[in-house]
Amino acid sequence: MERTSSEDRRLDDAHKRDIVVKRLNERGVSLEEIAEITLDLQKPHVPGLTLATCLDHVERVVMKREVQHAVLTGLELDVLAEKGLVSEPLRSILMSDYGLYGIDEVLALAIVNVYGSIGLTNFGYVDKTKLGIVKKVDERGKADGVCHTFLDDMIGAIAAAAASSVAHRYA
Amino acid sequence: MERTSSEDRRLDDAHKRDIVVKRLNERGVSLEEIAEITLDLQKPHVPGLTLATCLDHVERVVMKREVQHAVLTGLELDVLAEKGLVSEPLRSILMSDYGLYGIDEVLALAIVNVYGSIGLTNFGYVDKTKLGIVKKVDERGKADGVCHTFLDDMIGAIAAAAASSVAHRYA
Amino acid sequence: MERTSSEDRRLDDAHKRDIVVKRLNERGVSLEEIAEITLDLQKPHVPGLTLATCLDHVERVVMKREVQHAVLTGLELDVLAEKGLVSEPLRSILMSDYGLYGIDEVLALAIVNVYGSIGLTNFGYVDKTKLGIVKKVDERGKADGVCHTFLDDMIGAIAAAAASSVAHRYA
Amino acid sequence: MERTSSEDRRLDDAHKRDIVVKRLNERGVSLEEIAEITLDLQKPHVPGLTLATCLDHVERVVMKREVQHAVLTGLELDVLAEKGLVSEPLRSILMSDYGLYGIDEVLALAIVNVYGSIGLTNFGYVDKTKLGIVKKVDERGKADGVCHTFLDDMIGAIAAAAASSVAHRYA
Repeated sequence: MERTSSEDRRLDDAHKRDIVVKRLNERGVSLEEIAEITLDLQKPHVPGLTLATCLDHVERVVMKREVQHAVLTGLELDVLAEKGLVSEPLRSILMSDYGLYGIDEVLALAIVNVYGSIGLTNFGYVDKTKLGIVKKVDERGKADGVCHTFLDDMIGAIAAAAASSVAHRYA
Repeated sequence: MERTSSEDRRLDDAHKRDIVVKRLNERGVSLEEIAEITLDLQKPHVPGLTLATCLDHVERVVMKREVQHAVLTGLELDVLAEKGLVSEPLRSILMSDYGLYGIDEVLALAIVNVYGSIGLTNFGYVDKTKLGIVKKVDERGKADGVCHTFLDDMIGAIAAAAASSVAHRYA
Repeated sequence: MERTSSEDRRLDDAHKRDIVVKRLNERGVSLEEIAEITLDLQKPHVPGLTLATCLDHVERVVMKREVQHAVLTGLELDVLAEKGLVSEPLRSILMSDYGLYGIDEVLALAIVNVYGSIGLTNFGYVDKTKLGIVKKVDERGKADGVCHTFLDDMIGAIAAAAASSVAHRYA
Repeated sequence: MERTSSEDRRLDDAHKRDIVVKRLNERGVSLEEIAEITLDLQKPHVPGLTLATCLDHVERVVMKREVQHAVLTGLELDVLAEKGLVSEPLRSILMSDYGLYGIDEVLALAIVNVYGSIGLTNFGYVDKTKLGIVKKVDERGKADGVCHTFLDDMIGAIAAAAASSVAHRYA
């Protein structure tokens, strides 16, 4: 009985993982680009670390239920804001990526925490210095009608969580 | 210069406070009903505590920017799910108040943290025992087409934050 | 290479797990007593759930690195306060289990978060209602010279995290 | 009655503020040095921002109860580890500033959260790039017998919280 419900659960999570990856792709982001940030973060600490290994840890992160829910919720808000379906004043807050909004960081923290608080530092660093794809996403988000308020934080949080996962393994 | 921008800010927050209260009302909840939970929580610890004092602390909580943003975001997701504007699988997760979703608790934590971690215990207690208006909101949320996934957590979190505010004052 | 370092790591965590269990025992708490709280929390939701299964999930929780570090740190502070080795005003804060201290809840949150934010509610409920062994620990902590400021929160957090682990598996 | 207890409380917090500042000084850190980090962080966003203003916001941060408790607890652990009063394996974890410990970041988060989640990014950035006094503290911490495991995170967290306070005011 248990085995079956547990199997169902895993299938369910694998299905949600596919949707998360598809949504990220639709917003212009691949798991490989996220793994590149993870590699940048952990290369100095893990000699010989490869992009393939980092991608493997990014894949583990997006199999986690809390991560999937945070990403699906954040990206949905970005998309609904773009479509004009979010009511004011939230719509303007999202469309302008208002610096004091804070809820994007709250969802990012939920992702980072999945591998413990050691990921906080890396998340903050990626978010501030806009490493790799985060920079591109940030630039694209400045175009009229585009909302990337959550997208850049979701990317930074997944990359930082994957970096924690790498650190825990190669400690 | 500073004074002016600071005044603007306060006006802005007071304006958002009005919208937050209006949205809560539209979802069937008054600040008085939230203050009743706060009174229940703090009465044993603060002799002579009144509903009026609790309401005053609830008012302080909804003047906080992070609280306003969390509530506006959570209630928006409930409403958009009801309207069928949220894509799958998030829509089903929200409409069924899926127990492993977790993002409702994440937003609640952001609210509670505004007055420090001592509010965690009260939030958990209110959420689990469904005190006062939380119970009513939970029942109404079971009706077809109604989504209260975030609403009950937002109420519990505001009540717990106000209880922390009372505790900090009458320590 | 990786395999070896990974094996070392697991051995290291298993060693820390033994120390954590020993410390809890020295403070008058067994994993079985913690598992009883988990059973109380999840019984209504998982028909046929046994104490043995709950104990298995408690064991998983205390194998997690972040949990081990939080518990070792919290229990150390309790013990050092009892021995009079903590400087003022922190010593008095700890010895009196000052309600506005908050750092006990902060460490508890780090434990609960290991299995996602769904554990918040259960932690708050256990902490407030003082289920099972939490009640006993709380009573003992009132004796002269005894400090259980962190102990009760560590127990509640482990029990709540194990309940989340059960919920994720039998969803 | 309320007024009196509230006045007591403020006196109490002012007293604790003095102890926090004294402890930071004893560990080689002044509030001015922390304010310099805050200035570095916010200068690009707030034209004409001065060190005096940043210091004013740092002072507000160390008047907050949760901040005081986190700092007192973190610095106590550093000092007790140096004195050899912390039991193993925690002592070695602290003395070596073990990268996967995580509890230093947990306490830092409690400090940062006092001004909302927008401080997360700045904390991570300061912690990773070791701005100003953080760098010095980190270097000194490598000397034999010195433990700065919590000190650098406490500094970074206070500086980031003060930066949030500045941002909220001059938004």
